[in-house]
Amino acid sequence: MVALAPANSLTQVGIGNFSTEAGAEIPGATIAYRRFGEFQGNAYSNNVILVEHALTGDTCVDSWWDGLVGPGKALDTERFCVIVTNALGGCHGSTGPSSEHPDGNRWGSRFPALSIRDLVHAEKAFLERLGIYHVHAIIGGSMGGARALEWSLLFPTITDAVCVIAVSARASAWQIGIQSAQISAITRDPDWHEGDYYGVCDGPITGMVAARKLAHLTYRGEMEMDERFGTIAQQGENPLGAFRRPDQRFAVESYLDYQALKLVERFDAGSFVILTEALNRHDVGRDRGGLNKALYSSRVPTMLVGVDTDILYPFHQQEHLSRNLGNLLGLHKLVSPVGHDAFLTETRQMDRILRMFINKINDGAEPTDGFGHDPEGEWTI
Amino acid sequence: MVALAPANSLTQVGIGNFSTEAGAEIPGATIAYRRFGEFQGNAYSNNVILVEHALTGDTCVDSWWDGLVGPGKALDTERFCVIVTNALGGCHGSTGPSSEHPDGNRWGSRFPALSIRDLVHAEKAFLERLGIYHVHAIIGGSMGGARALEWSLLFPTITDAVCVIAVSARASAWQIGIQSAQISAITRDPDWHEGDYYGVCDGPITGMVAARKLAHLTYRGEMEMDERFGTIAQQGENPLGAFRRPDQRFAVESYLDYQALKLVERFDAGSFVILTEALNRHDVGRDRGGLNKALYSSRVPTMLVGVDTDILYPFHQQEHLSRNLGNLLGLHKLVSPVGHDAFLTETRQMDRILRMFINKINDGAEPTDGFGHDPEGEWTI
Repeated sequence: MVALAPANSLTQVGIGNFSTEAGAEIPGATIAYRRFGEFQGNAYSNNVILVEHALTGDTCVDSWWDGLVGPGKALDTERFCVIVTNALGGCHGSTGPSSEHPDGNRWGSRFPALSIRDLVHAEKAFLERLGIYHVHAIIGGSMGGARALEWSLLFPTITDAVCVIAVSARASAWQIGIQSAQISAITRDPDWHEGDYYGVCDGPITGMVAARKLAHLTYRGEMEMDERFGTIAQQGENPLGAFRRPDQRFAVESYLDYQALKLVERFDAGSFVILTEALNRHDVGRDRGGLNKALYSSRVPTMLVGVDTDILYPFHQQEHLSRNLGNLLGLHKLVSPVGHDAFLTETRQMDRILRMFINKINDGAEPTDGFGHDPEGEWTI
Repeated sequence: MVALAPANSLTQVGIGNFSTEAGAEIPGATIAYRRFGEFQGNAYSNNVILVEHALTGDTCVDSWWDGLVGPGKALDTERFCVIVTNALGGCHGSTGPSSEHPDGNRWGSRFPALSIRDLVHAEKAFLERLGIYHVHAIIGGSMGGARALEWSLLFPTITDAVCVIAVSARASAWQIGIQSAQISAITRDPDWHEGDYYGVCDGPITGMVAARKLAHLTYRGEMEMDERFGTIAQQGENPLGAFRRPDQRFAVESYLDYQALKLVERFDAGSFVILTEALNRHDVGRDRGGLNKALYSSRVPTMLVGVDTDILYPFHQQEHLSRNLGNLLGLHKLVSPVGHDAFLTETRQMDRILRMFINKINDGAEPTDGFGHDPEGEWTI
């Protein structure tokens, strides 16, 4: 008997005591989720599509993928039951560093390091608590893509197919470098307090702003950013004065400040560190005989998507996946000046790819969509 | 009468009072230089090649371009007199924030913001003090390339040709973003003391390390870095433990730490901030009717070089220069996994390009070189 929460309602599900890959314990862990669309079927055969969010994403997929999830859209909620979990370690309902520890205080520095596999294991326990032992598809981008890929290797029989977007088989050295720089920007902030800032101060705001600005520069393509801002001065400020002053900025600096401050309001620094570290540890080859052996062992039909201008997860990383995965459905390239975030912003292209994915795993028919057939800017292996 | 310092000897030349583009004053400014090879000719016709270093470079071109400068090498010191200046604002002999102010203390926070044009104006004054009013060629990469380009626009009759490597016509928004993040990493360090740390403490070492790590991630291609380090743990450390610990690192983190600490030993944080800010202000279009009008006005034969994997100055920026410059000698592409720094590391390719440049501006003959003719990995418009 599968019993789900009301539609579009953040609901927490206890998954009991959780042990991490590296051997730490999280007693009484919780995973929060939302669902969109009615459940049809049973525990082993149903219409569930699990959507995995990116690092600072959340369960509100109807917001961050609003053009792609809903009635009649590519992930059609009149047809499918879309379930979105908040990642373990996050700060939007699932247990994370800002959650209450069993001792009544916050987890803070006691919250253990997580791997991508840990996030997936927690979600597996969550699905079992719901009474779900199989889903129709798992789809995710960026950190969500890393989870989708790990799902297909950890639990090859749990899904009919996965769609892995804008991610790699493992962290690259460059990713570890830039992600560690973000962690360091936060932990250098005196208001970090080794992760135990809850109840002490407002947290490492300056560090979070610095970290998010770096992250943002890897999420957005330099061409798109340059088209918008170039060397324009922020209105009312003069970045070309006789002395450098931090309050006299180029427009792009103001934009990055603004975006970072918006994130600080909605995202916990402790969660940011834990999930960034999880991406540092992403490596499907670990304890599986290496990267390519692990990929070749995959039995789950896998659709890959990359972005031509992604500097964080460059397209050659998705090409590497496509050459080595044991059961490849196809490789699609988003063509966009936007960079990594294109999977969130290039709705027309993503619509077509997701419809193709859904159709392929249902009846193999050519996709129909609301945009007309337009293969330009896409190619498939 | 042109009188130069002994060969390969760091020599300081006073250039008098210097006024910046933004209207600040530096009384009694000094430019330091080295020369390699004997001067031949006179003030208006001679064998001088001015080489412009990159941001953290210095006058020791025989060290950082050791395969390219010397007897019989592409920049042949038996034929040419190679002069390398230390940039104004730097910390290797020219006046910068760590220099003594006329009042006997350090310049520190009183040192004004500089533009790339300021650096060039200071070098122009320096050449005049030497009695040199024309040079044979000006060559530079990265910040040196920005200076070479500005030379050709500020003083179109001063040189027979310029070679502009791995740079753009102006800072891009992305560059301003990542460069400002580096400045911010330094100025957030409590040991920065608003730039007046001299004599107070050892300076903002933590901030400089953070800044340099970011810079390094933009100087090196992610493919080269990944080939070397991947997800390997630093020897004796475990980055996959139950809790994240900054002393348990991936090998790439250790590498970035090491490189950054090496820079801290040889480079002043104040100079790093001033010269990074100068790159933020790089814009050949300023006060010249815009970017393309400025480039089209160029009369100096200009050779362009870019790198296919450069994420800091992507190749499309050199293509933009090539489409708009008024007097283009050619556009060359270094093919390398190394990224931006390829102009420092891909000696075989650079050798051929610099020989081609020298030959083109001398007699137009095809280049001869010590490597044999091998056009693979290069192309020319």
